[in-house]
Amino acid sequence: MKSAVYRGVGKLSMEYKPIPKAGLNEVVIRTTSTTVCGTDIHILHGEHWVEDGRIMGHEHVGIVHEVGEGLEGITVGDRVMCSSNTPCGTCFYCQKGMAAQCVGPDGKQGPGGWILGNTIEGTHAEYFKMPYPNYNLTKIPDDVSDEEVLMICDIGSTGIAAAEKANIQIGDVVVVYACGPVGLCAIAGARLKGAGLIIGVDADPARMEIAKKMGADIVLNFKTINVIEEIFRLTDGRGADVAIEALGKQETFENCLRSIRRGGTVSSVGIYSGHLHIPIETFAGGMGDHKIVTTLCPGGRERMLQLIQLVKTHRITLESMVTHRYHFDDILEAYDTFEHQKDGVIKTMINF
Amino acid sequence: MKSAVYRGVGKLSMEYKPIPKAGLNEVVIRTTSTTVCGTDIHILHGEHWVEDGRIMGHEHVGIVHEVGEGLEGITVGDRVMCSSNTPCGTCFYCQKGMAAQCVGPDGKQGPGGWILGNTIEGTHAEYFKMPYPNYNLTKIPDDVSDEEVLMICDIGSTGIAAAEKANIQIGDVVVVYACGPVGLCAIAGARLKGAGLIIGVDADPARMEIAKKMGADIVLNFKTINVIEEIFRLTDGRGADVAIEALGKQETFENCLRSIRRGGTVSSVGIYSGHLHIPIETFAGGMGDHKIVTTLCPGGRERMLQLIQLVKTHRITLESMVTHRYHFDDILEAYDTFEHQKDGVIKTMINF
Amino acid sequence: MKSAVYRGVGKLSMEYKPIPKAGLNEVVIRTTSTTVCGTDIHILHGEHWVEDGRIMGHEHVGIVHEVGEGLEGITVGDRVMCSSNTPCGTCFYCQKGMAAQCVGPDGKQGPGGWILGNTIEGTHAEYFKMPYPNYNLTKIPDDVSDEEVLMICDIGSTGIAAAEKANIQIGDVVVVYACGPVGLCAIAGARLKGAGLIIGVDADPARMEIAKKMGADIVLNFKTINVIEEIFRLTDGRGADVAIEALGKQETFENCLRSIRRGGTVSSVGIYSGHLHIPIETFAGGMGDHKIVTTLCPGGRERMLQLIQLVKTHRITLESMVTHRYHFDDILEAYDTFEHQKDGVIKTMINF
Amino acid sequence: MKSAVYRGVGKLSMEYKPIPKAGLNEVVIRTTSTTVCGTDIHILHGEHWVEDGRIMGHEHVGIVHEVGEGLEGITVGDRVMCSSNTPCGTCFYCQKGMAAQCVGPDGKQGPGGWILGNTIEGTHAEYFKMPYPNYNLTKIPDDVSDEEVLMICDIGSTGIAAAEKANIQIGDVVVVYACGPVGLCAIAGARLKGAGLIIGVDADPARMEIAKKMGADIVLNFKTINVIEEIFRLTDGRGADVAIEALGKQETFENCLRSIRRGGTVSSVGIYSGHLHIPIETFAGGMGDHKIVTTLCPGGRERMLQLIQLVKTHRITLESMVTHRYHFDDILEAYDTFEHQKDGVIKTMINF
Repeated sequence: MKSAVYRGVGKLSMEYKPIPKAGLNEVVIRTTSTTVCGTDIHILHGEHWVEDGRIMGHEHVGIVHEVGEGLEGITVGDRVMCSSNTPCGTCFYCQKGMAAQCVGPDGKQGPGGWILGNTIEGTHAEYFKMPYPNYNLTKIPDDVSDEEVLMICDIGSTGIAAAEKANIQIGDVVVVYACGPVGLCAIAGARLKGAGLIIGVDADPARMEIAKKMGADIVLNFKTINVIEEIFRLTDGRGADVAIEALGKQETFENCLRSIRRGGTVSSVGIYSGHLHIPIETFAGGMGDHKIVTTLCPGGRERMLQLIQLVKTHRITLESMVTHRYHFDDILEAYDTFEHQKDGVIKTMINF
Repeated sequence: MKSAVYRGVGKLSMEYKPIPKAGLNEVVIRTTSTTVCGTDIHILHGEHWVEDGRIMGHEHVGIVHEVGEGLEGITVGDRVMCSSNTPCGTCFYCQKGMAAQCVGPDGKQGPGGWILGNTIEGTHAEYFKMPYPNYNLTKIPDDVSDEEVLMICDIGSTGIAAAEKANIQIGDVVVVYACGPVGLCAIAGARLKGAGLIIGVDADPARMEIAKKMGADIVLNFKTINVIEEIFRLTDGRGADVAIEALGKQETFENCLRSIRRGGTVSSVGIYSGHLHIPIETFAGGMGDHKIVTTLCPGGRERMLQLIQLVKTHRITLESMVTHRYHFDDILEAYDTFEHQKDGVIKTMINF
Repeated sequence: MKSAVYRGVGKLSMEYKPIPKAGLNEVVIRTTSTTVCGTDIHILHGEHWVEDGRIMGHEHVGIVHEVGEGLEGITVGDRVMCSSNTPCGTCFYCQKGMAAQCVGPDGKQGPGGWILGNTIEGTHAEYFKMPYPNYNLTKIPDDVSDEEVLMICDIGSTGIAAAEKANIQIGDVVVVYACGPVGLCAIAGARLKGAGLIIGVDADPARMEIAKKMGADIVLNFKTINVIEEIFRLTDGRGADVAIEALGKQETFENCLRSIRRGGTVSSVGIYSGHLHIPIETFAGGMGDHKIVTTLCPGGRERMLQLIQLVKTHRITLESMVTHRYHFDDILEAYDTFEHQKDGVIKTMINF
Repeated sequence: MKSAVYRGVGKLSMEYKPIPKAGLNEVVIRTTSTTVCGTDIHILHGEHWVEDGRIMGHEHVGIVHEVGEGLEGITVGDRVMCSSNTPCGTCFYCQKGMAAQCVGPDGKQGPGGWILGNTIEGTHAEYFKMPYPNYNLTKIPDDVSDEEVLMICDIGSTGIAAAEKANIQIGDVVVVYACGPVGLCAIAGARLKGAGLIIGVDADPARMEIAKKMGADIVLNFKTINVIEEIFRLTDGRGADVAIEALGKQETFENCLRSIRRGGTVSSVGIYSGHLHIPIETFAGGMGDHKIVTTLCPGGRERMLQLIQLVKTHRITLESMVTHRYHFDDILEAYDTFEHQKDGVIKTMINF
C-alpha cells in the first residue's frame, strides 16, 4: 500500500508498505480521508520524536477492511473512525475517567493515549490498524459526511475539550489565543459551552475571518492593538473569565495569564517545546485563586459519538476550516502547504 | 399610584396606593415594564398564599425614582432591574452559594428568596421598593431594550437554571416537558449548555412552533404520539440524558423519570401543588444512578448581568415569547388572557 | 465443587457442580472467603429474580486457580478479588464514567453492572469465574488480610459511594438511615468525606453501638425519640445537609426528605421493592433546590485499589462489622442467621 | 489602647492608639487572643507593603465591645471571631462564589478580601473594628476554647482550602510541601478529604513530628532522602495524585510539579515573592492533563462555622500547633521568636 513515511527530521517520502493483517482483537481500516495535523508538522520538525520509517497521520475516516478474531459487531464495509487518542479502556487512567492519559493494559504504553501515527503506524497510508477497536471503533451515521466528522478525531475533540476543561459558565467572557485549527475548535467549544463573549486573537486575516464563523464575537489583531488592554476595556477592567492557550508558546501562555481576572482559568491545549514562565505579577503572588489546566485530546468511541451528535444537529461545522483538498498521491504537497502556511491554508483534507 | 391588588382567591382589583418612600438602604423604582407570570396565576388561584391587599408582580424593568440613605453608586434616573428572587447576600444560604434559598439577614424570611410580589409589594404598580439593592439592583446597558431583558428576572433565569443544574454535557439528549414560558427558557438553556438534541413536548401548535425558535430540534405532540416510545426510538433504546420538568404536574414529572436513561437526570423547575409519586419501574429500584434536582430561580445582580451578557451577544432572544402587549391600565385584561390561555398567548408584556 | 445453589423462593441447597474452566480472556478463582449479603437475602425472598440453579454470592477474596488464553500479568496463585459490580470497560456507561451501569460489550447485559451471583455463577462455591478480568481483577497486597478487604467488594464500595455521590462538604451534618451493613459503610464514608456531624438512626442496640465505632457522633433510636425533631434541634432548626437512605423503604426515604434543609441532598443506596412517594411538604413544592441521587455499587480494579489504600492506612476498618464466622460447609446456617437477624448479627464471614 | 504598630521594614513598635468607635453598621471588638502569622512576617520583611503606622494581625478571638447603629442580633459581650479574609457579601466575587477575592461594595477594595491588619487596622491591639460584620461576625459556642478556634481565621481555613481546591478524592496520595503552619493545616485538610496516603515533606524534626499528629502517614526529610524518587517509589512509579505547595518558593512549587502523576493537581497556597518557572519536563509539554490551582483564605461567617463544627467534633485539633504563648505586652518577643524560628516554634498564641 502507498504510505507517507517519516524518514528523519524534515524528511518525508512516499513508499510502499505491506497492508497490515488483522490479528486477534484487531481490525484493519481502509483509509478514505485523512488530514495533515499540526502534530504531524511537530514530528517533521523533530519537536516530537518518532521512529524512522513511521507512517504518520491520525485524523481520518475509513472503511472496515478486515476484522480479526475475537471482535463482535464489526463488519467489513462499515464506515468508521476513531479518535487520534485511542484509550485501552482498562488501565488506571481509563478507569479513573482520564482516558486521554491511557498507558495501555500493561501500563507501559505512552505516556498519553495518542499512539496512532506516533508509536504505531498512522493514517497517512491506504490502510491502518485501529488500536483497541472495542473501545474506539466508531460507526459513522449515513447522514454525516467524511468532511463533517474528519476533524473531530483530534483538533475538534481537543479544542472543544479546552472549553470543557475550562469549566466555562454561560455568559462567561472567553479569550482564545490563537486562531489556528485547534484555537478555532476551542472557539466552537466556547460557543457550545454558552460563553457570552468570545474574543479570538490572531493576526492572519483569513483566520480572523473564519474565527467569526466558528463563533467568535470579536477577533483582535495583536499586530494592531494592545490585546490585554482591549480585553480589560471590554470587561470593565476586570479581565476575562477564561483564556484558552491554543498555540504552545511562552508568549501566548503568558498573555493568557495576563488576560484573566482573579479566580479565572487558563485552559491550555497548546503543545510546548520549551520551559514556561509565570511572571509574578500575572499570578497575584499565588493569592489570586487562579487555575491553570491542560488537556490532551479526549478519545474513545463515546467521545466520537458525542461530537457526531453535535455534527448531526449542526451545532458544530468544523468542515468550514477545510481550505485545501488533495488526493493522497499529493500528500507531500499538502504537507508543504500546511507546514509553510501557504495560500491562507487552515486545514487540508486528503482523499483517497 | 395605580396598583393591581390581590383581594382573595380569584379577585384582583386596580386600586390606588401611596408611592413607597425610600428608607435607610432602600431604593424606590418607577416601573416601566412588567409581565404577568405563571406564579401570579398560582396566587390568584389560591395555590400560593399571599396576604389580602398584596400588589403582585415580579418581572420588571424600571427607573430609579428615589435613593435612600446609606446607598452609594445608585442614581435617580438609572434604568434598572432585579431578579424576582432577591437574596440578602449575608445569610447562610447566600454565603453557601445557594442564594435562591435566602432566608434574609435575620434568618426568618422566606423560605426561599422570592419575596417581591409575594411577602412584599410587587411590580404590578407604578412604583415598588427593590429589596436589598446592594445585592440586587442591576443597571441595564443602553444597547439592550426593556423587552429583551424583561423575562430574565424570573422565567429566563429559572428555565436556564434548569439546564445548568441538570449539568448538561455537550452533545446530550435533553427532553423538556412542557413548552410554556419556563419550558421555552429551559430549551434556550439546553441550547446554551451545548445539548446535542433538544426535544420539546407539548400539544399547543403555537408553543410547539416557538419551541423550535428557542432551540428545540424536535417538538413532540403528546396528543398524537407516544412520547416515551419516541424518545427511546430517537436514542437507540437508551433514553434521554436529561429530562426537564417545567410544568409542575405528576404526569410530566413521571414522564421525565420514564424518559431518562440509567444515570440520567430529571431537572425540575415546575411548581407542584400535590404529592409526587415515583413508580418503582421508573427508578430501577433505586439502583439506576438516577438524579432528581429541583431549582428555584437564581437571583442577584451578577446573575442578571450574566444573562444580560447573553442578551447582548444574541445568545438568547427571550423577547420572541412576547405574544401580547398591554398598557398597565389594562393589566386585568392581561391577567385574563394569560390565566385562560386565550388567543395563543405565551407571554404578556405590560407597559406603563 | 461444593456450591450453595438457589432453588426457587426461600430454597437454598448445597450441591456439587463442576469446577468452571477458563476460556479465552477468562480466569477462574478459588474462593477463600465470602459473605452473605443483603442482596442474597433479597434473591432468596424472591424480591430480585435469578434463575433456578444459580450460585449466589458476590463479596469474596480468592486465589487465581486457572488463567485462560489472552490474559497477561495474571498468575496462578495470585491472591485477588473484584467488586460485585464488574464493568466491561468498553460500553457506553463504562466510557462515560458510570461504569456501575455497565451493559456489557454488546450493550445487552444488565441492566446494571452487577452480574456475579446474579446472571452468572457467584462466589458461594469453591470456585468461580471472574467477569472481565482485565478490568476487574485486583491483586491484594500481602499486608492486608482477607477480612479487612472482604466487604469493599460490595457494601463498602456502595456505602462509601453514598457519601461520595451526596457531595458531602467538610463540616456537613449527615444523617444515615439505617445502621445495617450498608448504612454502617455510609457512616464510614461520611467520615472519610469530612462530615462534621454524623447522625446514625436505628433501634438495634448492637447496630447503634457499632455505628459509633464506624464514625457516627450520635445514634438516634427511632423507637424512643422523634428523630426528625431531634435533627432539627441539633441543626438549630435548619435540617441536615445530607441524608443517606440505606434501607430501601418508603418510611426511611421519606424521613430522609424530612430531615434535610433547603438545598440539601438525599443520597439513596437502599434497594426498593415498591413505589416511592414524595409528600409535597417535604419537597417545598419543587422550589427547595433539593437533590435526590441514587447509586449502584461502583466497581472495577481501580475502585478496589482506591478502597484498599484506605484499608492499608486504617482509614476504614470494615472488618469490625463481622460478628459471625462460618465454614463454607455451614453456609446455610450463615444464611439463616443473617436472614432472620439472629444473635445480633451484622455481617457474616464465610471461610473455605 | 496598646497596639503593635508597623513602622517600616523590620520595625515594629508598641504604641498607644485611640480605641476605635463603632459607626453605622460597624462593630468594635476587644481582642482576647491573637497570633503572629507568617503574613505578618512577610509585612515586616517588606515583602508585602502596608502603610507606615498600620496595626498588623488578623488571627484572633475577641468580645464585642461596641455595636454601631444598623446592626441587629449582635450584643456587647458576645464572644466572636471572623476570618482574616472578610468578604463584603455583595461584590462580583462575593456573588459568584469566590468571596476570598472580594473587592468590596464599590469594587475598589483589595485586590483580594484580606484587609484586616493589611489595609485597615488589625488585631495586634486591644481593640479592632471587624469589617462587614453582617457577613463576617461569628459567634463562638461556649464549649469551644479560644485556642481551639484561633487558627481557623487564617491558616486553618487556608490550609484546609488547599485540600478542598485540590479536589482530593478518597484514597488519593497527597504530598504536602512543607510542614509549616499552613502546610500542617493542609495535612489536616487532606485527612478531612479522605486522602489515603499523606506524605509531608520538611527537614525540621519538630515540624516532622507534629505533621504526623496532624495526619501525615509519612514525613520525608528532604535533607536525607530524594523526595521525588521516594514519592514515585511509594506510588509504584506513577506519582502522587495531588501535591500541595505551602511554602511559596520556586523549589517547592517545582517539586510539586515533579511529584504528581499525569492528570494530577498542584494546589498552591504559598505566597510567592518572585516569578515562577515550569520546567517543560514537569509539564508533559502541556499534554499531561495537569492542573495548577491557587487559593486565598476563604472567609465569612459560614466558613468559620463550618470549621468550628469540625472543632466541636474533634475532627481538627489545630491548637496542637501552639508551641509558644505570650502576653500581648510581650508581642515583640513573639514576633522575634516566630520570625527567626527560634526554639522549635510552630505557632505562637498571644493572650490579653
